[in-house]
Amino acid sequence: MKFGARNQVTATVEELVEGGVMCQVKLGQVDASAGMSSVMTLESARDLDLKPGDRVRVVVKAIHVLLVKD
Amino acid sequence: MKFGARNQVTATVEELVEGGVMCQVKLGQVDASAGMSSVMTLESARDLDLKPGDRVRVVVKAIHVLLVKD
Amino acid sequence: MKFGARNQVTATVEELVEGGVMCQVKLGQVDASAGMSSVMTLESARDLDLKPGDRVRVVVKAIHVLLVKD
Amino acid sequence: MKFGARNQVTATVEELVEGGVMCQVKLGQVDASAGMSSVMTLESARDLDLKPGDRVRVVVKAIHVLLVKD
Amino acid sequence: MKFGARNQVTATVEELVEGGVMCQVKLGQVDASAGMSSVMTLESARDLDLKPGDRVRVVVKAIHVLLVKD
Amino acid sequence: MKFGARNQVTATVEELVEGGVMCQVKLGQVDASAGMSSVMTLESARDLDLKPGDRVRVVVKAIHVLLVKD
Repeated sequence: MKFGARNQVTATVEELVEGGVMCQVKLGQVDASAGMSSVMTLESARDLDLKPGDRVRVVVKAIHVLLVKD
Repeated sequence: MKFGARNQVTATVEELVEGGVMCQVKLGQVDASAGMSSVMTLESARDLDLKPGDRVRVVVKAIHVLLVKD
Repeated sequence: MKFGARNQVTATVEELVEGGVMCQVKLGQVDASAGMSSVMTLESARDLDLKPGDRVRVVVKAIHVLLVKD
Repeated sequence: MKFGARNQVTATVEELVEGGVMCQVKLGQVDASAGMSSVMTLESARDLDLKPGDRVRVVVKAIHVLLVKD
Repeated sequence: MKFGARNQVTATVEELVEGGVMCQVKLGQVDASAGMSSVMTLESARDLDLKPGDRVRVVVKAIHVLLVKD
Repeated sequence: MKFGARNQVTATVEELVEGGVMCQVKLGQVDASAGMSSVMTLESARDLDLKPGDRVRVVVKAIHVLLVKD
């Protein structure tokens, strides 16, 4: 299965923060020191049955990536 | 300076692919094996005066991150 | 494989319009009369090896969906 | 009135799920079997005065559409 | 007609920069000194029949707005 | 510090509406009559230590700007 997006890494779910509608999924990345986060609907998080320790693919379209230069 | 976004890494510009309106900036990440890409207007890329070797901050809001689970 | 996104349909690639950096992929949807379009980098389109007639899964996070009411 | 977006369908509001800040609007689509969802601020949902049965126009820019191929 | 988005202004089209697939629409804002830009597919720009001097409504969902603090 | 985005204004934080996961930041713009809003994770809002009266830079990539024409 291939995704039409330039940015893809594998990560591990570390924590889920659930709100009334949205859910923040905190990720530990394998190859990077910095953590990452995804926000999706609570409904999507439950569909994926996400829980700490799960391995997930992280997909970001290049157009959503902002560059900042000092 | 602080950014209201959960995902931030530092990367090095490796290559710029210029089109008529848009510009793809290919990045090598310090802490990860996989490359990344950003797409912005050519005008923005020129404003940033991006060239291979430049160090940039990569910023992605959590809402733009899609998770996929096998 | 499951996606953390509320909107998913299956569609058929009808036409690819290639620019210098970006590529517009025009889709015919199975269950809807209206066509759809996706824009990605040319590089992603080539990675997916997209060509007319291909069946693809169309994924859109709910946060990117704008509602308009008369 | 015309929208600068490649993807537009008409749908019916089926349910609103309200959180503290965001609101998920579940949609039934006329021409498709699958349901759709939009997430917006609660404030926007109230401005639109959305309620089940309302007809809305669903607008998505092509750049937000991710394609996945098996 | 009401839009499910927190950010809406009126602006005037100043210039169109056309690429192979995308089109950058440069805007002059009525109430602000700074110019703005929108990028859409060339096809959308032609559907809107955009030309310098046109009055357009500029719509941005709050989730797409990044805040930066010194 | 330069941002790879076509739309940048300065604004003042007027109000924060906190939910379980997300936070809406209402902004008063200097040069425009209309208010603006950003939505980010509560965690990001706390990282920025946002409070009413703070001056922030508002950054929006051109691709996230939708134009509508009557």
